[in-house]
Amino acid sequence: MPQHMHETAPTQFVQVGDVRVAYRRFGKRGALPLLLLNYFAANMDDWDPKITNGFAAARDVIIFDYPGIGRSTGTTPSTVAAMTKDFVGFCRALDLNGFDIVGFSLGGMIAQQLAFEFPNMARRIVLLGTGPRGGEGMTFTELTVDELDDPASLLMNAFFTPSDASKSAGRAYLERLKLRATDRDEPVPRQAAIAQLESIREWGAIPLENRFAMLGQIRQPTLVVHGNKDVVVMPINAFLLAQHLPDAQLIMYPDASHGAQSQHADVFLEHARLFLNG
Amino acid sequence: MPQHMHETAPTQFVQVGDVRVAYRRFGKRGALPLLLLNYFAANMDDWDPKITNGFAAARDVIIFDYPGIGRSTGTTPSTVAAMTKDFVGFCRALDLNGFDIVGFSLGGMIAQQLAFEFPNMARRIVLLGTGPRGGEGMTFTELTVDELDDPASLLMNAFFTPSDASKSAGRAYLERLKLRATDRDEPVPRQAAIAQLESIREWGAIPLENRFAMLGQIRQPTLVVHGNKDVVVMPINAFLLAQHLPDAQLIMYPDASHGAQSQHADVFLEHARLFLNG
Repeated sequence: MPQHMHETAPTQFVQVGDVRVAYRRFGKRGALPLLLLNYFAANMDDWDPKITNGFAAARDVIIFDYPGIGRSTGTTPSTVAAMTKDFVGFCRALDLNGFDIVGFSLGGMIAQQLAFEFPNMARRIVLLGTGPRGGEGMTFTELTVDELDDPASLLMNAFFTPSDASKSAGRAYLERLKLRATDRDEPVPRQAAIAQLESIREWGAIPLENRFAMLGQIRQPTLVVHGNKDVVVMPINAFLLAQHLPDAQLIMYPDASHGAQSQHADVFLEHARLFLNG
Repeated sequence: MPQHMHETAPTQFVQVGDVRVAYRRFGKRGALPLLLLNYFAANMDDWDPKITNGFAAARDVIIFDYPGIGRSTGTTPSTVAAMTKDFVGFCRALDLNGFDIVGFSLGGMIAQQLAFEFPNMARRIVLLGTGPRGGEGMTFTELTVDELDDPASLLMNAFFTPSDASKSAGRAYLERLKLRATDRDEPVPRQAAIAQLESIREWGAIPLENRFAMLGQIRQPTLVVHGNKDVVVMPINAFLLAQHLPDAQLIMYPDASHGAQSQHADVFLEHARLFLNG
């Protein structure tokens, strides 16, 4: 039996240098930890309970707030590299040795940076709706923090396609985000979102040479998951990851945008299970 | 219990117009038929027993020789459209109503043409190592029938990558092709291979307009499977299928060429099962 679920896991805190990091840990204690790295301007309550609980059936799931986000203190850095160092500190503070990571969008950038810079920390990596450093069209010029004023509308437009099936999945997703009724997280401060936006834009800048050289250095088995109509991170970026990572399996779902893994949650959880157990 | 397997299924014959088509049928009789459409210059013995038997555990598997190939009489047509008409005749001769299809390379082209031209025949479609009509770099200029003189070398070079892991998978694959000891198929005549080569080159020619319009008309749920280093059909073609088919899931395997589904047979069978049962 899993100990706690997404809805009930108490918010805990761990000191990492000057920062008090908020996290929740639930699922099958004793199993290999699975750390989930969050997307732009998201706090712990923004994880889809269907996915976190799906993982928690077999894994020791850990979600957390980046510094300066939600109930974590500190300042949100404006580069992926600095966020990665923060994440390493968090893992060490929890004394984690051996774990898998799931990185969604911004979280997938941190996951890549971790695998590149700290090659012995994560075992397997799942990259959701993300792209390589200097990927295709990753300027995020259409993304502004003003959109955060209407999160439901932002999620419907960015995570789901205009089709009836996708919009219906989107509405179910928004309902699931309300399932945790107590001990909710704090909103993401505007200043933190601005710093994160800066960090993903910096990540997306195309380097002058050796555009995808970093990917060739990542040795972990990686599962790349993407929606074939992702309007936030163009789908070609998932293809580029699969082309340049030495050991990446790519799965792309139909009629799906940035929330592909939530729209296709049942089959995604099966695919992720096959990969993580593989 | 499956009735017969790849190794033991007797070769049967059915008359389709002037042509006597050779086929083998094995697996779970009464289950939904799964028809396998073969690749360039291949006969029934060229199917990987690990894959056919894997499918046969739960499905009524049918493999066959195209007209003019192996033990089928008749003349091999030089267009995919004509091969598709032959295939429709074969399905009708067997009185098949309701089935799924797996098309590998050339077979995947026929599968697409079938879905486009005869939209009510196949239920679900699996496309292996294939590309859309007018796909990217599908000129097949490096493929010649002379290569068929050394099939083992051709398969190792075209189906597997230079890595040790892939080459090792290739050797195991070649051994599996020998598992069927009796009632073997006949070689593919040179003239038939020439006609097939013509047909895949015609398929690959880029139309002057509406390049991928056909794909938008295909309503079937489709699973697109490809190797990320396919040297026969460039991997970008799988991405194009996933972009333009209305309901396609894409799975791309690492360190894999045209024989991706054989190199990653265990996980491929799981992925195909999830898709076909979905």
